[in-house]
Amino acid sequence: MLPFRSLAWTGHSLRLLDQRRLPHVTEYVECTTVAEVAAAIAAMTVRGAPAIGVAAAYGVVLAAQAVTDFDSLPAVLQTAAASLKAARPTAVNLAWAVDRLLQVSGPDLATWQARLLAAAHRLYQEDAEINYQIGCQAQAVIPNEATVIHHCNTGALATVDYGTALGAIRVAAEQGKKLMVYLDETRPRLQGASLSAYELLAYGIPFRVMVDGASGHLMRTQKVDLCIVGCDRVAANGDVANKIGTYNLALAAKAHNVPFYVACPLSSLDLTTPHGEAIPIEERDSREITHIGDRPIAPLGTPVYNPAFDVTPAAYVTAFITEKGLVYPPYGETLPRLREMLS
Amino acid sequence: MLPFRSLAWTGHSLRLLDQRRLPHVTEYVECTTVAEVAAAIAAMTVRGAPAIGVAAAYGVVLAAQAVTDFDSLPAVLQTAAASLKAARPTAVNLAWAVDRLLQVSGPDLATWQARLLAAAHRLYQEDAEINYQIGCQAQAVIPNEATVIHHCNTGALATVDYGTALGAIRVAAEQGKKLMVYLDETRPRLQGASLSAYELLAYGIPFRVMVDGASGHLMRTQKVDLCIVGCDRVAANGDVANKIGTYNLALAAKAHNVPFYVACPLSSLDLTTPHGEAIPIEERDSREITHIGDRPIAPLGTPVYNPAFDVTPAAYVTAFITEKGLVYPPYGETLPRLREMLS
Repeated sequence: MLPFRSLAWTGHSLRLLDQRRLPHVTEYVECTTVAEVAAAIAAMTVRGAPAIGVAAAYGVVLAAQAVTDFDSLPAVLQTAAASLKAARPTAVNLAWAVDRLLQVSGPDLATWQARLLAAAHRLYQEDAEINYQIGCQAQAVIPNEATVIHHCNTGALATVDYGTALGAIRVAAEQGKKLMVYLDETRPRLQGASLSAYELLAYGIPFRVMVDGASGHLMRTQKVDLCIVGCDRVAANGDVANKIGTYNLALAAKAHNVPFYVACPLSSLDLTTPHGEAIPIEERDSREITHIGDRPIAPLGTPVYNPAFDVTPAAYVTAFITEKGLVYPPYGETLPRLREMLS
Repeated sequence: MLPFRSLAWTGHSLRLLDQRRLPHVTEYVECTTVAEVAAAIAAMTVRGAPAIGVAAAYGVVLAAQAVTDFDSLPAVLQTAAASLKAARPTAVNLAWAVDRLLQVSGPDLATWQARLLAAAHRLYQEDAEINYQIGCQAQAVIPNEATVIHHCNTGALATVDYGTALGAIRVAAEQGKKLMVYLDETRPRLQGASLSAYELLAYGIPFRVMVDGASGHLMRTQKVDLCIVGCDRVAANGDVANKIGTYNLALAAKAHNVPFYVACPLSSLDLTTPHGEAIPIEERDSREITHIGDRPIAPLGTPVYNPAFDVTPAAYVTAFITEKGLVYPPYGETLPRLREMLS
């Protein structure tokens, strides 16, 4: 039993683990309105593309539950959906989850509200199952004694449970595989040093945290079996948007012939985005770089370049690890075909 | 006139700018014994390979000045040299500067002491001149309107004045070139975000600080004219030891056909080191990664991998920028020949 849970429906509100206070404080916040959910997503109280998607679904539920008259519900849902989608522009799961709830309807207000809640619960349940499946599928490429590099946080904190890349590592450990996991600390928000370290300590999996700039040196001087990362969006051609620093890791992996895997649910695949150039890259507040908490680390007035994500071209991805199995190049053919088979 | 000075001889002691307190506090510490100098080098009160070398030379002077009897001087100098060299194992300038002082001798104690001081002063003066020359030589490869990526701190704070890679940027600005400098923040010690930002603000040169993991994304999405870094040691074959993260930057530069220059004095060239594998790589305290100042950023008990330097293979270096001019491949031939011409 995990000592934490990224998000949960309380019966009347959405309870979120406040990830900005981790790893030192395990504290939850309660959202009772869609505005609170959107604000929590924007502020990264909840983070990780899959967790954001499920949180946004419950945000739609909260918006619907505040409505008392049937006729106004459609407009309220549209407004809620727009505000939630605007909270973080890069992850596709958010828009995908919200759109799934917009497809729900009902003959009367109470039924419609109940169906929305049921749809959000289904997303929650599916996310846990899909992530566990991703972890199982990944075992095909994780050897029994493996040295693995991981970027950002992609675990149970970023999802409903298990997670994508870190979930694959957790399933490997549960199956008795011996692992050494190198965690990129993942500047600027240090999700690796704080969140992924918090998870791996909880699971008892051996790991070391390193600065993001050390991955090339590690691969040049020691045997690394694979890199595994999650993603925020996969374009139709296989280009991957993920946390800033992913592309530098992929470049280092390529130079050392280390396989580079992207673990993600098929919901991360956005066939309407032809390639990486079409993915909007969020730029975040310069304080993420100039400060650690309240402590300034740069001189006053330091200008900053702070893209939150980067795009790793498809050519750097050895395979995608999805809940339905591994997907290999040419992604321009294999990814659409896979999505077609499932729809 | 600069508002700071990395190191200066006061007449009876070595005054060091305490770089651990930068960028917020400009404060100096005074070393009156060789032990204090060695401790300041190990603690990174003074940092940057050239500044360390000059500081160590004055450390030898302080050791000699504490001696009152001629016969004991040689042994004292040997002990002082060993303790200084042990303070930081990677940079070659340190051993080189100390060895240069060990070649000094005199017919009596006072003369010997005076010659040691004069030799240290010469190193100080030479460092300032050599660095300015490096900056001038670099202008051949810095276009008039240039976007430049720089790693760590290699400026006046890391040397007696000007510095190597950052000195090249400063000379370019002094010559009226329009620059935009992207500074890798350079985890774990953030020399880019703190020290290089402090310098570029002082010089009025436009810049932005970014996380180390953003360089690939920057090069993939914007025109970058060159990367320029300093170094701690160059092996005979052209392999370069420099601050961790340099190699990842070089990998990204190579992938985007962005020239990657290493600016360094010829004293960084160590012909007794055949290649990068022979360079000892210092591993530093895990607190550099788990804490920012006193603030923990990782959970208690987080294990760490913290190499302070990495090795960039010669194949990734477009050219070395030295005080005598640019050096191009094949480095296994050009570097030894250059050194030969000068000795």
